[in-house]
Amino acid sequence: MRTLEWDKNTNTIKMIDQRLLPGQFQVVSIDNYQSVAEAIKTMVVRGAPAIGAAGAFGMALAALHIKVKDKEAFLSELQQADTILRKSRPTAVNLSWALNRMMAKAKKVIGNTDEITQILIDEAQRIADEDVEINRKMALNGASLIEDGDTIIHHCNTGSLATVDWGTALGVIRMAHELGKHIHVLVDETRPRLQGSRLTAWELEQYHIPYEIISDGAAGFFLRTGQANKVFFGADRVAANGDVANKVGSYMLALAGYDNGIPVYSVFPSSTVDLSLQNGDEIPIEERNQDEVLGIQFNGEMVAPRQAMARNPAFDVTPGRLFSGLVTEKGIIYPPFHINLPEIIKRDSK
Amino acid sequence: MRTLEWDKNTNTIKMIDQRLLPGQFQVVSIDNYQSVAEAIKTMVVRGAPAIGAAGAFGMALAALHIKVKDKEAFLSELQQADTILRKSRPTAVNLSWALNRMMAKAKKVIGNTDEITQILIDEAQRIADEDVEINRKMALNGASLIEDGDTIIHHCNTGSLATVDWGTALGVIRMAHELGKHIHVLVDETRPRLQGSRLTAWELEQYHIPYEIISDGAAGFFLRTGQANKVFFGADRVAANGDVANKVGSYMLALAGYDNGIPVYSVFPSSTVDLSLQNGDEIPIEERNQDEVLGIQFNGEMVAPRQAMARNPAFDVTPGRLFSGLVTEKGIIYPPFHINLPEIIKRDSK
Repeated sequence: MRTLEWDKNTNTIKMIDQRLLPGQFQVVSIDNYQSVAEAIKTMVVRGAPAIGAAGAFGMALAALHIKVKDKEAFLSELQQADTILRKSRPTAVNLSWALNRMMAKAKKVIGNTDEITQILIDEAQRIADEDVEINRKMALNGASLIEDGDTIIHHCNTGSLATVDWGTALGVIRMAHELGKHIHVLVDETRPRLQGSRLTAWELEQYHIPYEIISDGAAGFFLRTGQANKVFFGADRVAANGDVANKVGSYMLALAGYDNGIPVYSVFPSSTVDLSLQNGDEIPIEERNQDEVLGIQFNGEMVAPRQAMARNPAFDVTPGRLFSGLVTEKGIIYPPFHINLPEIIKRDSK
Repeated sequence: MRTLEWDKNTNTIKMIDQRLLPGQFQVVSIDNYQSVAEAIKTMVVRGAPAIGAAGAFGMALAALHIKVKDKEAFLSELQQADTILRKSRPTAVNLSWALNRMMAKAKKVIGNTDEITQILIDEAQRIADEDVEINRKMALNGASLIEDGDTIIHHCNTGSLATVDWGTALGVIRMAHELGKHIHVLVDETRPRLQGSRLTAWELEQYHIPYEIISDGAAGFFLRTGQANKVFFGADRVAANGDVANKVGSYMLALAGYDNGIPVYSVFPSSTVDLSLQNGDEIPIEERNQDEVLGIQFNGEMVAPRQAMARNPAFDVTPGRLFSGLVTEKGIIYPPFHINLPEIIKRDSK
């Protein structure tokens, strides 16, 4: 199944509960937008594109439950849902992009509130379907960068679980594998939430792609000793100059690739690009609960002193200068990014 | 107290049991060399300089319990103790260095076996005291690099627990604090064995130095956003050109400091330098059991898929070009390291 799917019969959204993987595969059904916001916040669903689609379906759910028939009042209540959904994850641009698209759509409808509701359900479904199509295109574009025999270091989870299907960086890896290229993946465990060990490893097993897990700090060792020759990760928000906000640790990984002349790629749909931001310093970085860092256990025992405090930024910004290329559904973008990125992103899709 | 101390009244060696930290602070008393070997093997005591001193006291304990008064037979029994102690951590260079020094001392004594025993007790004490003195000098040298208000990122554990007292990089931080400088430490948790969360955090609490734990991949975020302005770590082996082998993750941390114009320092006693190695590529890197990577738990549950495999290099090599300076007991060494490092290391101590 897809990471999230609309169920027409029950008017609910079904999501794989990613917090339980790889131990359990469980699907939750959500029938109201507040629970969608909560699911995003608590990372039942995660990954920028998946969150965007989840937010869109959240708006559809909100519309379904609004009782008033007066259009003005209806749109006003819809706006409240938008506000609550928007707050659930501040860094990922796809969420606000999807919410903007849903609100704009709602405002344009000529008909009554029932018609608005149906149109919003269709629009959310369209966002999800487009995501799958976009990811397939990205995967095909990116797969051309991968050669038979490559060992790729990958950070966080950017697979189908992070999107509606296929994924971004991991979609590229999966596509290369499906095209018959023999590849090996070194999976950054990706502290603190361990999306690499937990989700990427699980996905790679589903695809039968050989992999090994490494601690994030070990990537430099493999890059410096010639035991890895490509770096791929996703993006949560991209500025007009090619600076990429992504899961914390991406920046240091990119530095280690760059320092050894090994190509580093970020893979993202064009909706991840925020052309209003001149550079990555303007991207707000979410800081999450310190328990994600401190809650680690070994042999069932906590590791840090009981009164210890932690800092926990969820993302960091990798400067565009460290990338060999940026992979989108519209093509691979090469430096200079401050010229080529806006040009390609603004290009109309066919 | 010191990490290990000789008790004159009971002729025993007392050690902090590092396996129980930070949960419990427990001191064990050991009265025979076989138990010293066992304590080294099971990592009651760890850290190359601390192990060296422990081995020396082990030889003193062996001498105390040898019953024969014939000098030849006495030395032969002492040699057996040396062999057993030497096997407890075959890779630790300081251990064999300390054992060699103890045996050589014993063989030189003109007097009887009681006199040999007393001289060995004194020599072990001297090895421990010298370690403290070297560490104090390093700490004082390095503390001059730290300014009031600094926020320092530190990797692994390099504190008094790894030595007899003071420590290397953490010794520098402690000395700066004792000299009245107000500092804050961001403690890399240091996957996979988490020596940062486990031991460095505990030590900083003992010294009342404010700190926060971070995941290793987050260091780049703090360095790039100006929230940290110095990087300090230790060294396990240093080549003649200033390349430093240290706990895995050090290289990526140094890259992140360097990329932001933030000074990066490695702190080590001159005995850590191996002038026979032209560069760091010649340093063999130990790969440890994959369970250190895969054995992590959250809420009592394993994270990685059950059949997952991992790679686990214990160290990496940071090229000398990334360091602003190298701190030793003989002074701070500045670039060009391939000239200045051999010169200063070969310089006789006063």
